[in-house]
Amino acid sequence: MNHISINEIKEWDRFYRGNFINCLSGFKPVSLIGTINQNAQPNLAIFSNIVHLGADPALIGFINRPLAAGSHSIGNIQAIQQYTINHISSSFIEKAHQTSAKYIAGVNEFDTTGLTAVFKNNFKAPFVAESKVQMALELVEIIPIKDNGTFLVIGALKDVFVDKKNILADGFLDIKKSGSIVSLGLDSYHTCNDGERYEYAKVDVEPTRKT
Amino acid sequence: MNHISINEIKEWDRFYRGNFINCLSGFKPVSLIGTINQNAQPNLAIFSNIVHLGADPALIGFINRPLAAGSHSIGNIQAIQQYTINHISSSFIEKAHQTSAKYIAGVNEFDTTGLTAVFKNNFKAPFVAESKVQMALELVEIIPIKDNGTFLVIGALKDVFVDKKNILADGFLDIKKSGSIVSLGLDSYHTCNDGERYEYAKVDVEPTRKT
Repeated sequence: MNHISINEIKEWDRFYRGNFINCLSGFKPVSLIGTINQNAQPNLAIFSNIVHLGADPALIGFINRPLAAGSHSIGNIQAIQQYTINHISSSFIEKAHQTSAKYIAGVNEFDTTGLTAVFKNNFKAPFVAESKVQMALELVEIIPIKDNGTFLVIGALKDVFVDKKNILADGFLDIKKSGSIVSLGLDSYHTCNDGERYEYAKVDVEPTRKT
Repeated sequence: MNHISINEIKEWDRFYRGNFINCLSGFKPVSLIGTINQNAQPNLAIFSNIVHLGADPALIGFINRPLAAGSHSIGNIQAIQQYTINHISSSFIEKAHQTSAKYIAGVNEFDTTGLTAVFKNNFKAPFVAESKVQMALELVEIIPIKDNGTFLVIGALKDVFVDKKNILADGFLDIKKSGSIVSLGLDSYHTCNDGERYEYAKVDVEPTRKT
């Protein structure tokens, strides 16, 4: 183990530092967020800082970069109050990664990347047809993070589209079977292996594997 | 693909619903957060809703549950202003999961689980010796999320302890080599496969694999 202080990190080249720091939070859930603007122009962008906030009410949050770096998705969400979160599978990593290019406002990343926008259930924002875990969210709150100009965008779950056969007897959704992947740092994508599930942990009881 | 509406989800048994909703945000970075109270009593707890907030300044956030469900870590962080984040490896998943048991305040989860607290570099909070990616953080801000009583805890990176041989030429930290894992839902833990890295995405350029 080597010790690296923040003072040393601050001296690093910014790209080297960016790669390093972006890996420290760990492997990340990575999804495509679909939005639409007031002129019915769809937008699609990749996000990897997504957090479960609660199950009842079902709330999911994600971090949006400062407006100077990424304003299209959050702008559309503020205007329309709706958006979709779509898990990424191995079969379309390249297309998903390509949505991170700095397209100007008004460009439809579904068209530029070849992913398929699908509208359903009277929801305004587009879903990604290729995704095997699709969610519709309504905006609850955008919390500005003053320390660095980012935003925590909180949405309430409205609809889920999944294969019910991937839901286990206790409600657990086996997203590995849906092909969902993770990202690491700014540009790395990984599949996950079959997991180990453990029983609910109790004081004074040895941990037990469930599966 | 099957459609599941939030109205259907609200009717589900709460454990079934909890398992399902906790899987929707995707595979999650999972780490042990080490804290200490004003009586020098260490505390260790598992957290899986961790987000990279920015590289310069280097900020990492995590979601703490409502105080009624989990007050020890956040209380210690408020009191001492310091904490550690320690990646979890396959070799100690059971011990890490066991920290989620509802130990009363004052119980040292290092002792109850057999993980090793280590103090270094004059940092007050304990690190997990078994972890191959250890970080020291200073509290920047705790943002209450009024919608469900959770908190976004934001910390500034102060020190990193890793094997430098896992840092690639461009700064990317290969945490797969460190054995870091992900979690899914409330109780599932997964290793990740070797990743695919892509070049920085540019408008009008086809995506290219780097490795």
